[in-house]
Amino acid sequence: MNYAPVLEQIRAELAPVIGQGRVASYIPELARVPADRFGMAVVGIDGSVATVGDAEVPFSIQSISKLFTLVMALKLEQDGVWERVGREPSGTPFNSLVQLEHEAGKPRNPFINPGALVCTDILCTRFAVPENAVVEFLRPLSGNPDIHYNRAVAASERRTSHRNAAMAHLMKSFGNLRNDVDAVLDAYCRHCAIEMNCIELARAVIFLANGGTQPGVGPMLTSSRAKRLNALMLTCGTYDAAGDFAFRVGLPAKSGVGGGIVAVMPGECGICVWSPGLEPSGNSLAGALALEKFTTITGRSIF
Amino acid sequence: MNYAPVLEQIRAELAPVIGQGRVASYIPELARVPADRFGMAVVGIDGSVATVGDAEVPFSIQSISKLFTLVMALKLEQDGVWERVGREPSGTPFNSLVQLEHEAGKPRNPFINPGALVCTDILCTRFAVPENAVVEFLRPLSGNPDIHYNRAVAASERRTSHRNAAMAHLMKSFGNLRNDVDAVLDAYCRHCAIEMNCIELARAVIFLANGGTQPGVGPMLTSSRAKRLNALMLTCGTYDAAGDFAFRVGLPAKSGVGGGIVAVMPGECGICVWSPGLEPSGNSLAGALALEKFTTITGRSIF
Amino acid sequence: MNYAPVLEQIRAELAPVIGQGRVASYIPELARVPADRFGMAVVGIDGSVATVGDAEVPFSIQSISKLFTLVMALKLEQDGVWERVGREPSGTPFNSLVQLEHEAGKPRNPFINPGALVCTDILCTRFAVPENAVVEFLRPLSGNPDIHYNRAVAASERRTSHRNAAMAHLMKSFGNLRNDVDAVLDAYCRHCAIEMNCIELARAVIFLANGGTQPGVGPMLTSSRAKRLNALMLTCGTYDAAGDFAFRVGLPAKSGVGGGIVAVMPGECGICVWSPGLEPSGNSLAGALALEKFTTITGRSIF
Amino acid sequence: MNYAPVLEQIRAELAPVIGQGRVASYIPELARVPADRFGMAVVGIDGSVATVGDAEVPFSIQSISKLFTLVMALKLEQDGVWERVGREPSGTPFNSLVQLEHEAGKPRNPFINPGALVCTDILCTRFAVPENAVVEFLRPLSGNPDIHYNRAVAASERRTSHRNAAMAHLMKSFGNLRNDVDAVLDAYCRHCAIEMNCIELARAVIFLANGGTQPGVGPMLTSSRAKRLNALMLTCGTYDAAGDFAFRVGLPAKSGVGGGIVAVMPGECGICVWSPGLEPSGNSLAGALALEKFTTITGRSIF
Repeated sequence: MNYAPVLEQIRAELAPVIGQGRVASYIPELARVPADRFGMAVVGIDGSVATVGDAEVPFSIQSISKLFTLVMALKLEQDGVWERVGREPSGTPFNSLVQLEHEAGKPRNPFINPGALVCTDILCTRFAVPENAVVEFLRPLSGNPDIHYNRAVAASERRTSHRNAAMAHLMKSFGNLRNDVDAVLDAYCRHCAIEMNCIELARAVIFLANGGTQPGVGPMLTSSRAKRLNALMLTCGTYDAAGDFAFRVGLPAKSGVGGGIVAVMPGECGICVWSPGLEPSGNSLAGALALEKFTTITGRSIF
Repeated sequence: MNYAPVLEQIRAELAPVIGQGRVASYIPELARVPADRFGMAVVGIDGSVATVGDAEVPFSIQSISKLFTLVMALKLEQDGVWERVGREPSGTPFNSLVQLEHEAGKPRNPFINPGALVCTDILCTRFAVPENAVVEFLRPLSGNPDIHYNRAVAASERRTSHRNAAMAHLMKSFGNLRNDVDAVLDAYCRHCAIEMNCIELARAVIFLANGGTQPGVGPMLTSSRAKRLNALMLTCGTYDAAGDFAFRVGLPAKSGVGGGIVAVMPGECGICVWSPGLEPSGNSLAGALALEKFTTITGRSIF
Repeated sequence: MNYAPVLEQIRAELAPVIGQGRVASYIPELARVPADRFGMAVVGIDGSVATVGDAEVPFSIQSISKLFTLVMALKLEQDGVWERVGREPSGTPFNSLVQLEHEAGKPRNPFINPGALVCTDILCTRFAVPENAVVEFLRPLSGNPDIHYNRAVAASERRTSHRNAAMAHLMKSFGNLRNDVDAVLDAYCRHCAIEMNCIELARAVIFLANGGTQPGVGPMLTSSRAKRLNALMLTCGTYDAAGDFAFRVGLPAKSGVGGGIVAVMPGECGICVWSPGLEPSGNSLAGALALEKFTTITGRSIF
Repeated sequence: MNYAPVLEQIRAELAPVIGQGRVASYIPELARVPADRFGMAVVGIDGSVATVGDAEVPFSIQSISKLFTLVMALKLEQDGVWERVGREPSGTPFNSLVQLEHEAGKPRNPFINPGALVCTDILCTRFAVPENAVVEFLRPLSGNPDIHYNRAVAASERRTSHRNAAMAHLMKSFGNLRNDVDAVLDAYCRHCAIEMNCIELARAVIFLANGGTQPGVGPMLTSSRAKRLNALMLTCGTYDAAGDFAFRVGLPAKSGVGGGIVAVMPGECGICVWSPGLEPSGNSLAGALALEKFTTITGRSIF
């Protein structure tokens, strides 16, 4: 299917809302990104690429990195991951400590901050420089050998990461963090600061649309595990708005406060949209609307 | 596709676990149901029917009725329903009062008890005898003109419905219940006590697999609304285990403490499985495993 | 000690704030009470009476009745009461359902609504017309044989008692309510609607200042139990502001949303102040300030 | 009054329970303390001293230090302290994060860990070596110029202080901690590790029984502030059991997991009891019983 006209239509219809929403402002590097950027890319299993707007402008992937650290943790520890992280929606704001305390330091799922910290902890145990391992994992997947993380962003995040530190220490107190808290937070802030563009991210998730195998790279996960990861993205991938997002969009997706959202159309393609203005739930406002239009216009969703 | 051999294989593989789990025991009528019953039916959009085991034995649909009262409420009030009920997973046990109080009497979604009480309240406003309206709604959908509710079950439920009464009064205190609390509870306990068998239930959900139109009956919901209802079932349909259920099974589904689970394979068929032994989460133990095997054996899920 | 000049000084100093605060408005009968009323009475163990302002104007005692229903329940069941009600501050708003659910239907203490409902339930088990039993209990204690409850207030309360109904049904679901929910709510709303004035209420608590014995009436509680009841009032008697109230005032006290507060100076006197304007916590604004001035001016508190 | 015979009677009556309860075991230094130690001391405003048992054996004061850091913070910042810490009972286990998150990083009171961390933060702002400032504050109060903290205990505490670190980082994220988190935790663990005996601790709180003035040392707090601090101890001083403790004992008190409890009899004396076996609430089992017997035998409490 040729998605280029669909993407053009989406951009045209969204013109009035692009620039709305609130750009993440907790660190100066993110606050500086212009609110009116908008890019979208669809990369098919067959290698076809359709784009619109700022699809080649790199942005901070932030929480989208949680998807990749989970895949890496699953490759390392298989279902052992699920002994330390749950698979249920959080039902409360994405960085809440309440449930973590109530459930003895086991995060609800790997897509909220404490869950991603556990995955990062798994990487810290296996890799000397875990953030580099994430970067090296993403280079072949994205097709860009120059992917890197932004050191200024990582340093700013680290300085303001008191809530993440609180969650990490709480999990440490429950025995669910093996490495030094500071080392885990360092690695976490760095892989959140990785920069990619829409084409690279849409390409990097194709294996999830393709039974676990990345074209030109090889098998990443078993078909069953890839499907299950899609299910997890659908129920937990967009912070506290996952139910509403599934209702409106109907595709597995993972978002980040940098304004990016990746989505998967099983059997067909990977999708990435980017626009920095956020909804109150922390998802890209124009990005979520773009994906909603995408499934409405094409008449396709997983349902 | 001919599903009969798949169903036979599922029954054979599940033989050791059928009868495990805990049969609901809060009312004597449910407690008396033999734990070792197991039935499953697949009804295709094309009218084909495949069954195994006790697929023609009627059972108490219980919370599966929440799916049908939601459809009826949507037909009556369209998106007005969503002003009084949310679309997010609950994240806590299915009859918890905490979130209801914290969120000012607006239930998280229509598949938990307070959400279904709001849908029942909508029916109470429009119908003189709302439980009869539900029964009459289900007769053409299921193809059985004799469907009815069990008065003994309804009366037992009503006597033990103090938690539901607590939730109804709490919502009333927040102004989110328009009718008399006792009237809503009466209607609710009666439509929960409707009895149907696997074939009837699998048939009754075909419109959700078929873009909103029930073959031989006509359009029930728009295509878009049917897809969205499937999304809602996936994220919220199986109590507090929705994330895990989506992860393992990968199909929109709604379960009841009577041991029934209905599921939808978009574009193909409706499915119903029944086995009274429950998991701690309140879903049929053998039923959930049967659906997991169904998607594993057929290699099909929405992901 | 002659408290009359102290009371005059208090009224003079409080003149600017009398009338401030928000009069309870959830029922019309309370909403109609003029905000600028202020009365105070001190009744000594020796029978001396000092008053100021509207000390002889009857008002709705509301939650102050919780103190008397607890005393009656203790006389009936002694320490058996504590198997069904706790003795810890609630730490959350006074009618919250959260803790009640979390702690399996056992209210934190007898001075929050669910705790008082349990005490009323105990009275319902022993008395045919429990509200009359409360009235008859209060007549000799207060020295007024004409004390009664206001039927219009009781009826209004009953019509708006959905939150109390929610709590009662929740406790019933946990087995911590023996009588019919409606019967308990009826009796509860009626004893809350008892009307007394400051002198009568100050006199009615003298036994708590006098080792459990009411002068001219006889022993009500053992000395040890009376002291313990004072401790309970200090830690739990003024809704969610008990800590702050103890900090500022330093006397055991029980307040009601009708604007009354009774307090106990052990070994000396009973005190009652009334002013209908409330603080956000539900305690009389001028009443709490009057008691704070009372302990500041006299230099006496229990600490 | 001569308290020596009372103390002897208490020890005799408690003989069967001394040694019961669970000695704190989260660090080896505390776990090693023999469970069967028991000491008690009463020091009168007039300088009289009565003791029984191990009253001269030093023990780790732990959370009792929270009382002294609060007094120091009040001397430094007066009522400014209350802008950063509340005065209400916590209503949940003593180191819970829930309320802290819900109430935007403002701890409920200065006697739970996060509240004490804020007081320590105030000391960190004013003193180069805050733990030494606490020690120097306690030397004249206790009459022992050699008081010190145990470095091994402090180091062990620091290594296991992940929950405290979580709370400190959470408060830092809300802006309620001014100094570096590690510096505050260092100072906190050190002043918790101060070692004193029963006589020294009973003497160190006499100013609270004496209108704020320490005999032979001078005024510590105004009379009003001393009374208010007693009220705060009564409502919040014994972890989650403060209501029950006030009910049973009826004296302002502060306990520590080292097994010590200090209490104040206004106008008369300071009291300290020590026995390492703890109740589930974290208070000394024999210690709480000893204080209950003390008020029962002497017939004196503040109520």
